[in-house]
Amino acid sequence: MSAWEKNIRKVVPYVPGEQPKEENVIKLNTNENPYEPSPRVKNKQLELGKLRLYPDPCASKLVEALAGYHGLKKENIFVGVGSDDVIAMSFMTFFNSDVKILFPDVTYSFYDVWADMLKIPYRAVAVDDNFRISADDYKCPNGGIIFPNPNAPTGISEPVRFVEDIVSANQDVVVIVDEAYVDFGGESAVSLIDKYDNLLVVRTFSKSRSMAGIRIGYAMGNEKLIQYLNDVKYSFNSYTMNTPSIELGVLSIEDEDYFRANIKRVIATRERFRKEIEKLGFTCLPSNANFVFATHDRLKAEYIFEEAKKKKIYVRHFNRPRIENYLRITIGTDEQMDIFLEFLKSLV
Amino acid sequence: MSAWEKNIRKVVPYVPGEQPKEENVIKLNTNENPYEPSPRVKNKQLELGKLRLYPDPCASKLVEALAGYHGLKKENIFVGVGSDDVIAMSFMTFFNSDVKILFPDVTYSFYDVWADMLKIPYRAVAVDDNFRISADDYKCPNGGIIFPNPNAPTGISEPVRFVEDIVSANQDVVVIVDEAYVDFGGESAVSLIDKYDNLLVVRTFSKSRSMAGIRIGYAMGNEKLIQYLNDVKYSFNSYTMNTPSIELGVLSIEDEDYFRANIKRVIATRERFRKEIEKLGFTCLPSNANFVFATHDRLKAEYIFEEAKKKKIYVRHFNRPRIENYLRITIGTDEQMDIFLEFLKSLV
Repeated sequence: MSAWEKNIRKVVPYVPGEQPKEENVIKLNTNENPYEPSPRVKNKQLELGKLRLYPDPCASKLVEALAGYHGLKKENIFVGVGSDDVIAMSFMTFFNSDVKILFPDVTYSFYDVWADMLKIPYRAVAVDDNFRISADDYKCPNGGIIFPNPNAPTGISEPVRFVEDIVSANQDVVVIVDEAYVDFGGESAVSLIDKYDNLLVVRTFSKSRSMAGIRIGYAMGNEKLIQYLNDVKYSFNSYTMNTPSIELGVLSIEDEDYFRANIKRVIATRERFRKEIEKLGFTCLPSNANFVFATHDRLKAEYIFEEAKKKKIYVRHFNRPRIENYLRITIGTDEQMDIFLEFLKSLV
Repeated sequence: MSAWEKNIRKVVPYVPGEQPKEENVIKLNTNENPYEPSPRVKNKQLELGKLRLYPDPCASKLVEALAGYHGLKKENIFVGVGSDDVIAMSFMTFFNSDVKILFPDVTYSFYDVWADMLKIPYRAVAVDDNFRISADDYKCPNGGIIFPNPNAPTGISEPVRFVEDIVSANQDVVVIVDEAYVDFGGESAVSLIDKYDNLLVVRTFSKSRSMAGIRIGYAMGNEKLIQYLNDVKYSFNSYTMNTPSIELGVLSIEDEDYFRANIKRVIATRERFRKEIEKLGFTCLPSNANFVFATHDRLKAEYIFEEAKKKKIYVRHFNRPRIENYLRITIGTDEQMDIFLEFLKSLV
């Protein structure tokens, strides 16, 4: 080992879902949306002549569009390079206590990676036997709280009063609610940000807006919270949102009809698919997301995962305690789900 | 103050150069390139249908294009959202010693911001009376070194043997050479990365490639160094480079003729402009960048800065010790520089 290696920040990085490079695969493993973004986004010819200039460091056009959309002020909105960037910045900004932060044990698998990387102490709080988060478990001294609602990879969502129960019991720390999947049937906690100055609500364009490739995430919260977040962001990188992401993000916000129709299609397919696989011996957790989390009464999840891959169907399997016998299946088009159902029928 | 505020990371953020929103300004304040990117980039119609999918987390197409361009392997290349992102990640990855890191006192004003934000101890080493970095000042115990070559905001560049002198004397720490401006006449240290496994060379598409709006920076170094950097990056955000930046970045690399011609134009204008303002009583430091750093023998820099702004001409003034009487003037088109010269003539 070279001498310079002793002062390296050594980490075990997050492993994103496989991005197969082969053609003609059915990709149900990373919760992308099977439908294209709004045609307004798709048909936009970028004014590339502008590319020689730095983008607006405040991404004002996008921030203002989001503020208008949610009925908030621009001071309530923070934008970043996907919700991962937003959450990473939030961990850096808000979680600087010596007391452990809390998040569920079954949840988005990036939380412990961020905590490890940033040397933030944490405790993973067990969800119950039905994979539900219990609010009472979060009523103890802590350095901050984060949980997704709907939770991932379970898809289970809780009502606003559940979020309020946790936030109101923890007004001395920042509570982050990660609403990446909320548009697919969950209840948003945005209505609480006026009441609780310590609540941050995070969203993404990657799922319900079909724009994973453009990398836009955002957070909503009290002005003071957003100011602190922006101070850290400007100390890290002044210009994170590039010109295409600012321009195309605004176009997506402007097409509400397409957005609603897109979500409706995904939900309809999810409900049909869930009923179909339950007939085949699967049990699904109740999902308000664009995926289902399912276990079979006889076949091992890993076996199904491997067999599906041979047929070029990619779903997600987590080799983690408690959920090693579940598959997270992204909702694709009806046609894709039918092919997957045929495959499952042949397997069981 | 709310209780949750006590565990906030409180920082004094970097202040980027003004981005005036009014029309018809002459913008010579943020070292953007006055010419558009290669027409191959400009005329590209993005395949926006792909936007629903996550980008390739490894940005392989872009990494491979850069590796080919520099005659390196893809394992020697790290890409990020502008060189600011690359350097921020590098500070996080490499500068974890209790011993102070070193950088010049007159240099890119983001270095101390990153160090403060990440709680990295540092010492700013004074450049000499001619604003030159002295290699001997960096031959003492330290936790890492970073300097730009050419330096900013001076524009002064040093030869490769100067860089090697510093790197070879500091093989126990990581040395970062920030080559944001090297294409405008500097000598690159890339040739040294095979010899020294602790050397990281950073570049950007924002200056010589006229693509500040697309946010691409990259680093070149030993495989091990790049691996450590990628581990931290993947622990922060798996998908930082969005689809447009990967696609358009490759197109820029492919158009070497345009790239060379673009640089040549900027250098020609710089040399002409320098001679002209010297006739007006300015002294310019010898610049190998796309800007000049100039002081007038009679008029205060701040006065010129304010008067120019009234005429909608933006240059950069740093209210910092040693350089408060200098202006950093980005090289624009010949026409823009002529208007600025006319203004200066009327002022002196």
